[in-house]
Amino acid sequence: MEERLSEVEHLFDKLSRYAESGCYPYHMPGHKRRGFGMLPEELYKLDITEIDGFDNLHRPREILGRLQRQAAQLYGAEESFYLVNGSTCGILSAVSSALPVGGHILMARNCHKSAYHAVYLRRLSVTYLYPPYLEEFDICDAVEPQQVREALDREPDIKAVLIVSPTYEGRISDVRAIADIVHERGIPLIVDEAHGAHLGLCRAFAENSCRLGADLVIHSVHKTLPAPTQTALLHVNGTLVDRELVRRFLRIYQSSSPSYLLIAGIDNAIQYIGAQAQELFVRFRERYDTMLGRLTACRHLKFLRDVRERQDPGKLLISVKGTGITGKQLYDMLLDEYRLQTEMASVSFVLAMFTVNDGEEAYARMTEALLAIDGRLGERAWSWESGDRTDRLPCVEAGERNDAAALTKAWDMETEWVELSACIGRYAGEFINLYPPGVPLLVPGERLTEGLYQRIRDAIEQGLEVQGIRVQGEREDSQGKFLIPAIRESSAI
Amino acid sequence: MEERLSEVEHLFDKLSRYAESGCYPYHMPGHKRRGFGMLPEELYKLDITEIDGFDNLHRPREILGRLQRQAAQLYGAEESFYLVNGSTCGILSAVSSALPVGGHILMARNCHKSAYHAVYLRRLSVTYLYPPYLEEFDICDAVEPQQVREALDREPDIKAVLIVSPTYEGRISDVRAIADIVHERGIPLIVDEAHGAHLGLCRAFAENSCRLGADLVIHSVHKTLPAPTQTALLHVNGTLVDRELVRRFLRIYQSSSPSYLLIAGIDNAIQYIGAQAQELFVRFRERYDTMLGRLTACRHLKFLRDVRERQDPGKLLISVKGTGITGKQLYDMLLDEYRLQTEMASVSFVLAMFTVNDGEEAYARMTEALLAIDGRLGERAWSWESGDRTDRLPCVEAGERNDAAALTKAWDMETEWVELSACIGRYAGEFINLYPPGVPLLVPGERLTEGLYQRIRDAIEQGLEVQGIRVQGEREDSQGKFLIPAIRESSAI
Repeated sequence: MEERLSEVEHLFDKLSRYAESGCYPYHMPGHKRRGFGMLPEELYKLDITEIDGFDNLHRPREILGRLQRQAAQLYGAEESFYLVNGSTCGILSAVSSALPVGGHILMARNCHKSAYHAVYLRRLSVTYLYPPYLEEFDICDAVEPQQVREALDREPDIKAVLIVSPTYEGRISDVRAIADIVHERGIPLIVDEAHGAHLGLCRAFAENSCRLGADLVIHSVHKTLPAPTQTALLHVNGTLVDRELVRRFLRIYQSSSPSYLLIAGIDNAIQYIGAQAQELFVRFRERYDTMLGRLTACRHLKFLRDVRERQDPGKLLISVKGTGITGKQLYDMLLDEYRLQTEMASVSFVLAMFTVNDGEEAYARMTEALLAIDGRLGERAWSWESGDRTDRLPCVEAGERNDAAALTKAWDMETEWVELSACIGRYAGEFINLYPPGVPLLVPGERLTEGLYQRIRDAIEQGLEVQGIRVQGEREDSQGKFLIPAIRESSAI
Repeated sequence: MEERLSEVEHLFDKLSRYAESGCYPYHMPGHKRRGFGMLPEELYKLDITEIDGFDNLHRPREILGRLQRQAAQLYGAEESFYLVNGSTCGILSAVSSALPVGGHILMARNCHKSAYHAVYLRRLSVTYLYPPYLEEFDICDAVEPQQVREALDREPDIKAVLIVSPTYEGRISDVRAIADIVHERGIPLIVDEAHGAHLGLCRAFAENSCRLGADLVIHSVHKTLPAPTQTALLHVNGTLVDRELVRRFLRIYQSSSPSYLLIAGIDNAIQYIGAQAQELFVRFRERYDTMLGRLTACRHLKFLRDVRERQDPGKLLISVKGTGITGKQLYDMLLDEYRLQTEMASVSFVLAMFTVNDGEEAYARMTEALLAIDGRLGERAWSWESGDRTDRLPCVEAGERNDAAALTKAWDMETEWVELSACIGRYAGEFINLYPPGVPLLVPGERLTEGLYQRIRDAIEQGLEVQGIRVQGEREDSQGKFLIPAIRESSAI
């Protein structure tokens, strides 16, 4: 490629110049680039549609084509697509283009809900990979290459493999080894790397999956890079996936009027990062390591550390196991006492995210708050459990397969609202998700086990958001009656 | 409902206050609300994710629920949803929730491509309504109630009806009469009113479809109201469509990280319009009527006028028929000589859009430019055709059904690139669209007729954008060789 992509024109420049051009808009959007009401003028001034000179995201031939090639160059991808409907549409498009309707997919059970939605839309049959469990921190670990090999040996008709790496909690798979195994079968590997758009941009981090052999890679640029919410990238490599199908599904799952503000937001992030990745990320890594170093002084709180590039340093996982407080209590202390809004609370941990846009102050405030809180914690037993119950997601109980009906079939079956405890042993008719991260606790067609029942109760009692559950009566707290949609005719399964 | 929705808190206010609160973000988005690079600071400052207090668009219970109820109140809908993936996701969700997989839909052949995408995703069978043709202006007219009745009589297994009103060119159907006919069968009516979000907000305009009996109504608020590109509303009425399914498909087809900037943009438009609709639209209508009055002085250019609320005054359709110039030539004159960017050029007309955000100047500039151009036009014959060829879209050739294979099947068949003229009589394997508006000229499974071949050639010769066609050789102009994807084994159809 002869173009010097490092010198691509910024979309923002072009939009700004256009706004000053005196050209009057007799076209969409209806605000006509005039500010009004309460929002800042700038938001409207730069918001246009596919007029002459501004290309078309669904058929890029000019500036948007150059911007996408620049993104591909940054990640070492053969082809990249800007996404304005989030990683959601990237995952839907990747799965839809990698498998025919009714095909058989091998996918990690800790995938984001959009992966399950793709299964439903394309009426796929699914075999799950249940990632190993990291007992110490009560999270799913990364999927292991050996698991993938064994599953492919058992099920020779699998047409594509989908894993998530890094996981929401930051666990990173050996993508190179997994890609090699998957490619031996001549089928594509999709990596949901939504939480790893910063990987591979500097030597201080693990490599990104495009350079490790994955065929389709999804990056949420709004998660770990400084791009606006709802923006993402889809990268395509190799010849195992038909690129015309990728384009087809991106046209289907994304607005035919993509926002130029969001597109300019991706461009701004990519150009900023591309120009000074090494410097930005080295400083990021140093600050992060300094913080972790200072936090070794904690006597109660524990932190998940990066060993051999298997944990993403963008995530600070703070375990409260054995401290006498719950994840939600720590989350509330950080928020109420220190004005630190973290990403999420689980039953036994809190997750905080760091990116290149965090300055010294961000690290200092978190470090000092955690040291102070740790100082106040005693060696009490769990206040809310006898000690043997953990926050194990059902999806990770290795070997336990409790899915009786195919998701595609089960989600369309008739359901009835049943009280949670009365539902044990019955089949779910809806997704039950802990949010965030939106990884399903229970998938339609899976059975509610005793263990999962307890975990859902714990989550509700601790004030975490469990989606898919309805509260009967007035009080939306642990005193209410909780109902979930169960499949009506279990016999039909 | 007891809440006073006219006093709902602005999302912008809440976001602004939060930005000043001193609360530090250890969560997405990765820009951490800090501006950088070239984009304005404001864009980042207000861009958050679903943190405490900001609700969740996929499960609204607080501010976002109130905003949606306010939108419902404005349009007289029972329930409304804010959309951040455009009308595209509204149409996908409406069709997906109104019909089961494999169901039979009756839909207007001049629907937006997203309607065809919904058919494909849900593997529906389709019967088309071919709208009458408005010869004088070479456009599809609105679908007639009688057509709908006849089609439903012929095909008793139809499960839902989808029409577009206003059309892209502004033609408005008698939705009340159509809704009555459709409801006699106990099935739902979906109205793609993407181009009519301004309807019903003032007495100077036709009523909006929520108040005329439609079950599902899609409004692009960025098209005819002053909201940012990619924003829309979906309204639901009655009990013919399962609202849980509507919610399910909105979760599927929209990002799980919806942009708060886009949401705040919808809010800003709805609150602005809601507070002063009568005043804004009456002034709009007066200015528009004054312009049309002055334009009666034109001797060559013709304008489509509103008769009995069947034409949307937001669209100015300027016909060049019989003037000796093409639509594209008029479009270029307006742009190059007067700096007026219109919405689109067709073979025989140009379309300009007006909204409440246009001031006096917008009307004056357009009026004066058109009067001046008209003064230069002679009574020449068409320079590019013998006179009997028009811009008739194939979809409107009443009674002509050239779809041999179901879209759902045809789009997955093997194709080969065939030179356009050699393709006459063969079946298309891809959509061929004139863009804008993105209404398919040819749908997979439909045959390329001689008449359509001529019209596609005309469009290419005049420099219009025809999507789905590939140019062989270097030159992307009418001298190149044009290829379209034809289904390989026609015998298999």
